[in-house]
Amino acid sequence: MGGVATDSSEQDKRGAGASAAHTQALMERRQSLLGPNMSTFYDQPLHIVKGEGVWLWDADGRKYLDCYNNVPHVGHCNPRVVDAICRQAARLNTHTRYLHNGILDYVERLTATFDDALDTALLTCTGSEANDVALRMASAMTGKSGLIATDATYHGNTTAVAKLSASNRSPHGSSSHIRWVPAPDSYRPLGGTAGDAHALAFADAVSEAIADLEASGHGFAAIIVCPHFVNEGFPSLPPGWLAPTLAKVRAAGGLFIADEVQPGFGRLGSHMWGHQRQGVVPDIVTMGKPMANGHPVGGVVTRAEIMAAFRSSYRYFNTFGGNPVSCAAAMAVLEEIEQQGLMENALSVGAYAKQGLEQLAVHHRAIGDVRGQGLIFGAEMVTDRQTKRPASAYTDKLINAIRHRGIILSKLGRHKNALKIRPPMPFQREHVDLLIEILDAVMRETAMEQD
Amino acid sequence: MGGVATDSSEQDKRGAGASAAHTQALMERRQSLLGPNMSTFYDQPLHIVKGEGVWLWDADGRKYLDCYNNVPHVGHCNPRVVDAICRQAARLNTHTRYLHNGILDYVERLTATFDDALDTALLTCTGSEANDVALRMASAMTGKSGLIATDATYHGNTTAVAKLSASNRSPHGSSSHIRWVPAPDSYRPLGGTAGDAHALAFADAVSEAIADLEASGHGFAAIIVCPHFVNEGFPSLPPGWLAPTLAKVRAAGGLFIADEVQPGFGRLGSHMWGHQRQGVVPDIVTMGKPMANGHPVGGVVTRAEIMAAFRSSYRYFNTFGGNPVSCAAAMAVLEEIEQQGLMENALSVGAYAKQGLEQLAVHHRAIGDVRGQGLIFGAEMVTDRQTKRPASAYTDKLINAIRHRGIILSKLGRHKNALKIRPPMPFQREHVDLLIEILDAVMRETAMEQD
Repeated sequence: MGGVATDSSEQDKRGAGASAAHTQALMERRQSLLGPNMSTFYDQPLHIVKGEGVWLWDADGRKYLDCYNNVPHVGHCNPRVVDAICRQAARLNTHTRYLHNGILDYVERLTATFDDALDTALLTCTGSEANDVALRMASAMTGKSGLIATDATYHGNTTAVAKLSASNRSPHGSSSHIRWVPAPDSYRPLGGTAGDAHALAFADAVSEAIADLEASGHGFAAIIVCPHFVNEGFPSLPPGWLAPTLAKVRAAGGLFIADEVQPGFGRLGSHMWGHQRQGVVPDIVTMGKPMANGHPVGGVVTRAEIMAAFRSSYRYFNTFGGNPVSCAAAMAVLEEIEQQGLMENALSVGAYAKQGLEQLAVHHRAIGDVRGQGLIFGAEMVTDRQTKRPASAYTDKLINAIRHRGIILSKLGRHKNALKIRPPMPFQREHVDLLIEILDAVMRETAMEQD
Repeated sequence: MGGVATDSSEQDKRGAGASAAHTQALMERRQSLLGPNMSTFYDQPLHIVKGEGVWLWDADGRKYLDCYNNVPHVGHCNPRVVDAICRQAARLNTHTRYLHNGILDYVERLTATFDDALDTALLTCTGSEANDVALRMASAMTGKSGLIATDATYHGNTTAVAKLSASNRSPHGSSSHIRWVPAPDSYRPLGGTAGDAHALAFADAVSEAIADLEASGHGFAAIIVCPHFVNEGFPSLPPGWLAPTLAKVRAAGGLFIADEVQPGFGRLGSHMWGHQRQGVVPDIVTMGKPMANGHPVGGVVTRAEIMAAFRSSYRYFNTFGGNPVSCAAAMAVLEEIEQQGLMENALSVGAYAKQGLEQLAVHHRAIGDVRGQGLIFGAEMVTDRQTKRPASAYTDKLINAIRHRGIILSKLGRHKNALKIRPPMPFQREHVDLLIEILDAVMRETAMEQD
C-alpha cells in the first residue's frame, strides 16, 4: 500500500492546515488571472506538482493513487513518450506544408488498428477540433446539417461542438439542427429489460429524431455518440446493442460518428476501439485525450471518400496538427500500448476491479449497480435499491472523502451518482486492492443523510 | 554565406534527381494516408528533417535559410524551450482542474505585457480555438451575433471561425451574421492618399457594415482584425490609423477583437503587440502560432468583465489548454524574447531588411512597393509601376526559384503578389544579406512572361 496515507497522522494534520491556506491563496490568484467559474475537482482542490505512472503528488508531498485520469493513458510522465517528445523537439518541429515521415508513419500505424475501410486520417490538436471537423465531414458528405446526440453527452468545446451538449445550451446561437435522444441507461432501461427491448427503444428514438430533422428542412447528416456512452454513465450494453440504431441511420442516408475520446486506445480491454466491441464500423471516428499522453493531439479517421468530400468542400489547415513532435508522442503511445500489453492488462485488471466492486456491493446497500468494461468501471449509488433513487449528494461526499484518503476519482452520469473510475492503463491489481479497501472504509464512515 | 548552395554543384544535381523520386513517393503516400488537397509549399514540396535557429535541412542534407516560419518564433529547436518542455514533461502534465503555478505564473507574465485593463487570460491549444472563444466572448458580452472582418483575412479553422474567411466560404452553414469590409491596401488606398482619407474610408466601410448588421437583426457584436493586417498583405499603416474605426465600433456598442497571431510577441519590433503600435486597446486579444515556439498553445487575453460574461454564459473547459508543459514552453518563449533582446533585434534587422529591399527596387522595376515593420516585410510585385497591375504568376515563379537556391519564403495578399518574409526572431543582418543577394540573383534570371 506504500506511501498513501490512510489515516490522519500528525504530519498530515499540519500539512492539511498549511495546505488549506495555500489552496486559498492559489484559488484567489487563479480567480484574478483566469476569471471566475474555472472548474476544479473536489471541495478542496488539489495542487498537484508531480506525476509518475499511476501516482500523483501534491505540493505537500502527499501521494495519490490516480484512478481518474485517462489523458496520461500510458502512465504519468511515461519515459518512452517523454523521450520521444524531447528527441523530436530538439530535432525539428514544423507543419504539414512540408513533407515529413512522422505523420505518415503514425497514420499508417493508427489506421492499421481500424477496419480496412477506415484508411485515412486528419490530425488536430484536440478532440474538440476533431469533432468540429467530423461534423463538417458529415455535412460535406451528405449535403445536410441535422445532427443527433444523446441528452447526457459532451463532445467538446468549440462553438459548433459545444452545441451538442444538451446540458450546456448557450443563450446565443441556434441549435435548431440538433436533436437529442435519451441516453442509454442499462440500470433503468427504456423499453424494459426483455431481450432487445432497450436497443430497439434507442433505435426508435433515433428514428423519430431522423424523421423530425428531415421534416424540419435541416435533413439528417449524422449521429454522433461515444460507442461506450462513457459520459452517459458507461451503461452495460452487450455487443450488437448499437446494430439496430446503425441500421436506421444507414437506411436514412446518414453517417455514424463514433467519438472514441474515452473508450479508444484499448481502454475497454477487449478491443482497441469502443465501436469494435459493438461490432459496428462507423463512417467517422474521432479521438483526443489519451492519444499522445497529454501532448495536445486529436484526430479523425474516416473513409477516403469522406476525407475527399471534406477536403473539396472545406480548405482546412491546422498549423500544429500532425507536427513532428505531436506525431512522435502519439507514436510512442501506440508502441507503449503494444509493448507493455496494456490492452490485455486493461481487460484483466478491469475484470478484477469489477469483481471487487461486486464484493463491496454485498455489504453496502448504497451500491445499486456495478458496471465496468476494461479500465472504465464504477458503481451507481442509490438511496434505495427498489426505487433506484440516485444518491447524488452521497456520491459527492464519497469522492471528496476518498480524495482526502489519497485516491483520485470522480462521478458522472445523468444524476452524477456513478463513481467514475478510469485510471491510467498501467493500473495493476495491487492498485485495485488499495482502491477497494479505501472505498470500503469511506463508505462505512459516510452517512447518506442528504439524499 | 556558409552552407547554402547558391549554384548547382554536381552533388546538388544528383541530390535533386534522387530527391524528385523521393518527393513523389512521399506525396503518393501522403495522398493515400491523409487524403487529397492537403496543402504543401512549392511546386516541389520540401522534405524537412532538421531545424536549428533560422536554418532548416532537407532529407538530402541541403540547408535552407528560413525566412518564412513564424511558429518557431525564438528559433527552430530553441534550447531554452526544448529544455523547458523536457523538464516539465518528465515531471507532470495534467489539466487545469487541479491547481498549478505554471498557468498562473505564465498568465501573470503574459498579461503584464498588455494595457492594465487586459488582465485575464484563457489558454487553448491553437489560435483557432482562441478565436472561437473570442467570438463567443463577444456574443456573451453584447448579446448579439453580428461580426465584421476584412475580405482578405484568415482567422482559423473551426466551423465558427472559418466562416470569417470570405475566400473560403463553404457550401454548408450560414454566414448571414458576417459582413466583410475591403481589406486596407496602402499601395492602392481606398479613399486616396491624402491625409486620413484611407483610415476614414475603412472606418466608413465598418460603419456601413455595422448599420447593415443592426438592420439584419443579428446586431453588431464585434469586429475582428489582425491589427497589422498581415494576411491582407501587411499594408504600411501609420500609428493611429485604426483610431477612427475604433471610435465607430465603440459608439455602436461593439467589441474590438485583435488577432495577434502574426504581429504579436514582439515581431513588429517597436511594440510587443500589433495593437500597441496602433495606439489602441482592444477588448479581446487572441494569440497562437508563435506563443510556445510550435508546442500547441493559443490564448485569449481580455478584461475581467468580458471573461466573467463568457464564463457565466458558456461552460468551457479545455483538456490540454494551459497544462503545465504548455505553460512551461510558453514561459520559455517570453523569457527568450526578453533575455535575447529579440524585439529590439526585430526592429533593427527589420529596418535593415527593408532598406535592402528598397535598394533592390532601384534596379528591379517589378518591385512596385516595399513594406515592412520589424520582422514582417516584403515587396509587392507588379507588371507596371503606373498601373500597379499585380505580377502574381511572376511572384510564384520567384518563390519557387528562391526555394531552389536555399531560401524559404512565401507570398500573400489579395493578389498573391507580395513576397511574405517573416523569419524566426533571431534573424540577423548576415541573413538579410544572403536573402537580398539571392533575391537579386533570382529576379535577374526570372522573366515576367506569364503576367
